[in-house]
Amino acid sequence: MQEKIKEIYLDNSATTRCEPEVAELVCKILTEEYGNPSSMHIMGVRAENCIKDATKTLAGILKCKEKEIVFTSGGTEGNNLAIIGAAHAYKRSGNRIITTVIEHPAVAEPFKRLEDEGFEVVYLPVDELGLVDMDELENSLTDDTILVSVMAVNNEIGTVQPVEEIAKLIKQKSPKAVFHVDGVQAFGKIRLYPPKAGVDLYTASSHKFHGPKGVGFLFKNEKVRLETQMLGGGQQGGLRSGTDNVPGICGMALAAKLADEKLEENAKAMMENALLLARELSKLEDVRINGVMGRIAVSADSATGVENSETDAAAPHIVSVTVSGIRAEVLLHALEDKGIYVSAGSACSSHKKRVSDTLTAIGLAKKEAESTIRFSLNRYTAKEDIETAVEAMRELLPVLRQFTRH
Amino acid sequence: MQEKIKEIYLDNSATTRCEPEVAELVCKILTEEYGNPSSMHIMGVRAENCIKDATKTLAGILKCKEKEIVFTSGGTEGNNLAIIGAAHAYKRSGNRIITTVIEHPAVAEPFKRLEDEGFEVVYLPVDELGLVDMDELENSLTDDTILVSVMAVNNEIGTVQPVEEIAKLIKQKSPKAVFHVDGVQAFGKIRLYPPKAGVDLYTASSHKFHGPKGVGFLFKNEKVRLETQMLGGGQQGGLRSGTDNVPGICGMALAAKLADEKLEENAKAMMENALLLARELSKLEDVRINGVMGRIAVSADSATGVENSETDAAAPHIVSVTVSGIRAEVLLHALEDKGIYVSAGSACSSHKKRVSDTLTAIGLAKKEAESTIRFSLNRYTAKEDIETAVEAMRELLPVLRQFTRH
Repeated sequence: MQEKIKEIYLDNSATTRCEPEVAELVCKILTEEYGNPSSMHIMGVRAENCIKDATKTLAGILKCKEKEIVFTSGGTEGNNLAIIGAAHAYKRSGNRIITTVIEHPAVAEPFKRLEDEGFEVVYLPVDELGLVDMDELENSLTDDTILVSVMAVNNEIGTVQPVEEIAKLIKQKSPKAVFHVDGVQAFGKIRLYPPKAGVDLYTASSHKFHGPKGVGFLFKNEKVRLETQMLGGGQQGGLRSGTDNVPGICGMALAAKLADEKLEENAKAMMENALLLARELSKLEDVRINGVMGRIAVSADSATGVENSETDAAAPHIVSVTVSGIRAEVLLHALEDKGIYVSAGSACSSHKKRVSDTLTAIGLAKKEAESTIRFSLNRYTAKEDIETAVEAMRELLPVLRQFTRH
Repeated sequence: MQEKIKEIYLDNSATTRCEPEVAELVCKILTEEYGNPSSMHIMGVRAENCIKDATKTLAGILKCKEKEIVFTSGGTEGNNLAIIGAAHAYKRSGNRIITTVIEHPAVAEPFKRLEDEGFEVVYLPVDELGLVDMDELENSLTDDTILVSVMAVNNEIGTVQPVEEIAKLIKQKSPKAVFHVDGVQAFGKIRLYPPKAGVDLYTASSHKFHGPKGVGFLFKNEKVRLETQMLGGGQQGGLRSGTDNVPGICGMALAAKLADEKLEENAKAMMENALLLARELSKLEDVRINGVMGRIAVSADSATGVENSETDAAAPHIVSVTVSGIRAEVLLHALEDKGIYVSAGSACSSHKKRVSDTLTAIGLAKKEAESTIRFSLNRYTAKEDIETAVEAMRELLPVLRQFTRH
């Protein structure tokens, strides 16, 4: 009989396990506090109070006003609402909108639609680490620029953009432009206060930080106008209609609180694990770690030798690994056989069978991009899990290469 | 010390209590089957299989193909996607779109936006029972009509529209028009097979039938095209991007199964309770039951004396009551003090403080509309609950009238 292997889930950028206490809260609200916040009786009032408490929690975490939190069904809706909503709301002020070549499809696709509608879209290039070209940004910012959207953390390689610096440049060169940041991979891992950072719109998704699926939020600077995308009963201050998802919203707020409480401590531990993984894997033959994490891994022998400015540009939970000569799917399934779950490219968009824009943008050839897997950690990932993953890779790579290099 | 009163929740058209076993399933999936269906490893595959099972369950209930089910974040998103999606997809075929004057805001507001975009919108009137004027419909159906949207069950007065008859008329006079039905108040209470009934698009919302909040589905005839409203990773066959809400979807499918299993039996019991309520209340001074339910209540002394065709036009769970001389909010809060929860007008749109379009459309004066409350039952509502509600009304009305008619 085969021994049951321990499962090591390293696909946390695709989705995370919901915290048991969060799931319990969701379950409790579903069966006990099930009123509709729009109802006028006490059950409605109680449900509305749950929402108010959740709003307060999130506003506290982001250091923003409570009225600046809009609840959505997740990151995709948040990004769509922010981008299409802002472009339509400000179209009389200008026709130029700016984004990068490495955005998640939930940002890239809305930009494509806006381009079809007649907006002039600028796609900013990135360097080999995945960092936005600031000169190109500066040159692109014109008087008729109404929207800029740059992700905080890239979902495939973990590069962290200099959001505050970008915000300053925008305010300086295109003061009327709205600045949107896709924070889906950042929230709970990277400390970012949107108002302080000069961010007008900030998207987050609950299931990426151990909250329930099907819910998210959008921070919206109170001065920013958005065209409503979901029309109906006028919930969320008229900005997003539909019966409030009370259990989801409250579960998300609790998950956000748990993620926020020890953010720095957890991020530090994740970064140590990520660096261990990156360093050990980079020692293997024909293996390369992409993005900023890769540079840190090869430039430093120990975590202590790493410059702060460099770790600041790498998310603590994403390690993108190119294994030349082995197709990502083959490696993914070989790791799966050992109970280790990773992703080939970005799981969020794995429906689209095409080479990753991000990997191409940082200079990988098609073949390399197709040989790239992503390890993504969470705050519970143990050092032993990383060691097991390294050991598995060490064992697997020569064997798999034998098959491919027949 | 005050005795704790029993709570009687009669606001089920606003939202329902999630079935405990459904909530348990949601909780289990959140913490155990938490994979992203887009992930290629076994946890993704297992999550995807959960979605497939849910799809199969719903397709079985609606007697449609599995690929005709699209998961959404709820009724509002479903209605928006169906209406705006169809109008945009077919705008080259014609400019006329048709709906009624008594639709839920999640239908009415998308039509208003389409009107702003240049579509010619026809708003069909209804008679004093809330039934769509079929002659007007026939006259409105032209060659360039591309979309018709009529709700199955009105959320305020419970009138059931003759959906099959409407579908036939549309196919006959405007064969290229897409027929959308808002089934949010119908699903689980009224038997309707969209393909058989000639319905192309059918919206449902999980939390209206004891499922979790924040999730719903749209039946879409496989031949119908829709412009995608939420853009991103290409989930739901490219029609609705965003990480699939696996726990919500599976919870909804289980709730749908439970609602469907004994639908006829439950509907019959609900109708008996609703008729008891309607009949007893209609005996009180200056009280009037609106819609078809009102006609049945006064025309028959017992349920057995009711014509089938009449009960078919009344949903089994909604009783709309106009109590002349007493403002709805006053009565609502007086009932609340007795532990009985009802709605003033439609809770879904209580954010908009204005007179209900539905009540105005069936001929109520502003003052009458403002004196109208809605009782909405569920399949667990007991006869004793109804008797308690009737007794409470009997006690309250003279007292409240004393205060208002000072």
